[in-house]
Amino acid sequence: MNLSDYIHTIPDFPTPWIAFKDISPLLANPDVFVYTINEMAKKCTDTDLIVGLDARGFIFGAAVAFALHKPFVMVRKKGKLPWEIVSMDYDLEYWSNTICIQKNSIHQWQNVAIIDDVLATGGTAQATCRLIEQCWGVINSLVFLMELEFLAGRKKLAGYKVSSMIAF
Amino acid sequence: MNLSDYIHTIPDFPTPWIAFKDISPLLANPDVFVYTINEMAKKCTDTDLIVGLDARGFIFGAAVAFALHKPFVMVRKKGKLPWEIVSMDYDLEYWSNTICIQKNSIHQWQNVAIIDDVLATGGTAQATCRLIEQCWGVINSLVFLMELEFLAGRKKLAGYKVSSMIAF
Repeated sequence: MNLSDYIHTIPDFPTPWIAFKDISPLLANPDVFVYTINEMAKKCTDTDLIVGLDARGFIFGAAVAFALHKPFVMVRKKGKLPWEIVSMDYDLEYWSNTICIQKNSIHQWQNVAIIDDVLATGGTAQATCRLIEQCWGVINSLVFLMELEFLAGRKKLAGYKVSSMIAF
Repeated sequence: MNLSDYIHTIPDFPTPWIAFKDISPLLANPDVFVYTINEMAKKCTDTDLIVGLDARGFIFGAAVAFALHKPFVMVRKKGKLPWEIVSMDYDLEYWSNTICIQKNSIHQWQNVAIIDDVLATGGTAQATCRLIEQCWGVINSLVFLMELEFLAGRKKLAGYKVSSMIAF
């Protein structure tokens, strides 16, 4: 199955010169979505828990956690998660961002798989790795639906096991 | 299984006097999460497609769509979805909000199940119903993980089939 057939490229969204990768056709086709989740799940069989990134990472992360019968943990933007939080600031090209996880969500030395829809520059993924390591989790793998290879996000994730289902 | 045991109430979050319902313990327990998804799925068997609301609705909606092998469609805040969009403005207590769906995501007379984590005042759910009906979809059911009964959200959804797994 060629998954890239189910990702539409939308020019100039959300701003001019950005080519947005739209996952809606993939989600709209159950055969393709179920195949995708099962393929992503194969990359996470050795992990203790699945971490999904707000918001589209929730779609893939939660379905993989369901398929594998593993715990699911949310990583969210600042102000969205209650209770005791660990947070990580990181710089993007034109601004900075903060992601958070609940402190008690990962136990020491647990093997973690991080799931998101897109690997672009790798900034968010790298910050997520640091966040999880600050909670004493061990990054077992990072699994993306797609990877924008020209942005070289894998370079920022050197030393980690990185998989993507589609490369652009 | 008493699902309410896996929802923690966090006082004064995100602002004073708000008691936040934290779904993290439910997501962290695979037996409970899988049971929840299967119970929610039972309420959606007659539908053609599953609509999930950004962001926590994605967790439950995508897993139900995976379990039932049905299409999954995202409803998101303004500016998040590309291509041709239908949008709906609605008022909340202190501000207003806009939700969007892709125009081509629902075909005429398709039966739709709407999935979200919380039914509170019902404002977002009601706006989602209108949005889908504007696309000529038919609301078959609304399925929530939990319902805050004292906020009487069901009143706004009179005439629709509404289910929740937990009532507070």
